[in-house]
Amino acid sequence: MERIPVIDCDVHQTGSFAEYIAESWRRVRSPGNMPWPGALGHSVLRPDAVPPGGGTPGSDPAYLIHHLLEGEQIDWAILTGESLQANTHSNAHFALAYAEGYNDWLIEKWLSFDPRFKGSMMVAPQDIPGSVREVERVGDHPDIVQIVMSSSLTNLLGKSYYWPLFEVAEAKGLPIAIHPGAEGAGITRPTAAGYPSYYSEWHTMLPTGYMTHLISLVCEGVFEKFPKLRVVLIEGGVSWAAPLMWRFDKNWKGLRSEVPWLKRLPSEYIKECVRFTTQPIEEPESLDRLLALYDEIDAYHTVMFSSDYPHWDFDSPRVVFRGFPEELKRRILFENARELYNIGA
Amino acid sequence: MERIPVIDCDVHQTGSFAEYIAESWRRVRSPGNMPWPGALGHSVLRPDAVPPGGGTPGSDPAYLIHHLLEGEQIDWAILTGESLQANTHSNAHFALAYAEGYNDWLIEKWLSFDPRFKGSMMVAPQDIPGSVREVERVGDHPDIVQIVMSSSLTNLLGKSYYWPLFEVAEAKGLPIAIHPGAEGAGITRPTAAGYPSYYSEWHTMLPTGYMTHLISLVCEGVFEKFPKLRVVLIEGGVSWAAPLMWRFDKNWKGLRSEVPWLKRLPSEYIKECVRFTTQPIEEPESLDRLLALYDEIDAYHTVMFSSDYPHWDFDSPRVVFRGFPEELKRRILFENARELYNIGA
Repeated sequence: MERIPVIDCDVHQTGSFAEYIAESWRRVRSPGNMPWPGALGHSVLRPDAVPPGGGTPGSDPAYLIHHLLEGEQIDWAILTGESLQANTHSNAHFALAYAEGYNDWLIEKWLSFDPRFKGSMMVAPQDIPGSVREVERVGDHPDIVQIVMSSSLTNLLGKSYYWPLFEVAEAKGLPIAIHPGAEGAGITRPTAAGYPSYYSEWHTMLPTGYMTHLISLVCEGVFEKFPKLRVVLIEGGVSWAAPLMWRFDKNWKGLRSEVPWLKRLPSEYIKECVRFTTQPIEEPESLDRLLALYDEIDAYHTVMFSSDYPHWDFDSPRVVFRGFPEELKRRILFENARELYNIGA
Repeated sequence: MERIPVIDCDVHQTGSFAEYIAESWRRVRSPGNMPWPGALGHSVLRPDAVPPGGGTPGSDPAYLIHHLLEGEQIDWAILTGESLQANTHSNAHFALAYAEGYNDWLIEKWLSFDPRFKGSMMVAPQDIPGSVREVERVGDHPDIVQIVMSSSLTNLLGKSYYWPLFEVAEAKGLPIAIHPGAEGAGITRPTAAGYPSYYSEWHTMLPTGYMTHLISLVCEGVFEKFPKLRVVLIEGGVSWAAPLMWRFDKNWKGLRSEVPWLKRLPSEYIKECVRFTTQPIEEPESLDRLLALYDEIDAYHTVMFSSDYPHWDFDSPRVVFRGFPEELKRRILFENARELYNIGA
């Protein structure tokens, strides 16, 4: 059988980029307080991903290529960094300076290193006009393929507050991705009812924030206003989307007079404009039941592979799709991301 | 075919009970500000449920029996009231006085009226010691079958803050139920990222709060500490629970050292100790896929029928289970609630 090319939609390159941050902001030490100091009792990073020369897992481009891309037979990596706590910092000026420094470092150290690296540029959701300027500054770089933000935000993602960013993202053909990890950090909250106690509890709750953002995006009419905008839900789970669409479509049928700008079923907007990444993939006993829910959300067009390297709960592309139909596997491992990010064009 | 008896697990009796509230608190006019004034453009109550003598739908016990119980062939109604906004009021003393007045009115006006009415007593989650006293005061009434609280809370439901209430509930054999509708009212918040804009949006998001409370209950060890306690998730949806359990069990397998008091898979605690009510029932195109998710959560033991009378999105027991296997229908319409509430014993 022909080998399916693989695009990994969530690879965390790491390392310090302090010298890339504008000097006046370099002294701000922490990008945001994480609520889980040592909650796991160990790092969230894979110890076997430490580069041979030492340093943080994910910090050496050459070793990342050797260990992840060649080791797992992955052809392209969408880099998402490890710095989204800055999206939750109280100081919007610092958050933007931090994003600018990150983007310069991403381009210079990573995207220039190897054409298999594609970049997710940072913005600062605390400062949307500044974020728009930053997209105008670096968003045309040929290897910048999307804009990534923390999924932990102070506003629901569909609100008009974010629309200037959506406008420039649509104009430049850059999807907006959200990524978890900072829920409850800085100025954000992890749930409507406060803080969970444990890392595993917090981690199990992560999809709930994604659900609220997804519902908000549809209800506010974002996909009518910006029909070419694509939104990528990274690491937020996949199979919950099917029951959510059932409830959403039913409510729309009964209550659509309230949102007259929506011309189609909510599920139709989601299937056309939203993409989900797989890691951490759900693993029920019955693969058929998982595949039924993948079918409900048209996974053939909406789901993309991600490994989350070098995090502890890494998914290998050679393992996690065992039993999937061959053509669906090809769409998830390769085609959906190729089409979205225009890779290999 | 023999008719299946029906227990309706969510019937909203209405009406004023100002004269039952302690006089010093009677002047507090509003039990909590709802964020959706007129959002729907009409009332959430069914206009065809107005009693012949006038008044609010659900306010006349005799007409409720005629219209709902006899009209829909329902044998017992679990009354849940319409007053849970008081659970979100900033003033805990008022909230408790309001719950006390509600409970006296419930017993006098409703539970004494007809043996088919069973009552959900109110407490005040703002004052747990006071709520414990209230359970001790009225919780032994033979027709009080559970304790109901707003699902919109200022703490995640598993937190030890609530444990004194769980202790008295377990001792008296009273399930703890949560019910939506006040999300974002008073001192509570509707999502981690603030307020949605529209009623339909808010309504579609309601399950997310339920998910966080359910995960919290399991992680905090509530079902180990109070193994006989049962928790009822009213009107929060059903089918989302299957994907949630998949993620939860997987995380527990990887991270259980963090919650060593859990001796079983999270899904096992949920299936044993948690009950879901059906309304508003999900209606995907494929009934088989809905039933597959019902099977994942052992609906045969965990799911109970509710109509939500007299609300606009009422589900009729004669309609919503078309195509369900006969024995599952019997469990949902009757047996699961009969066993939980000890009805007809």
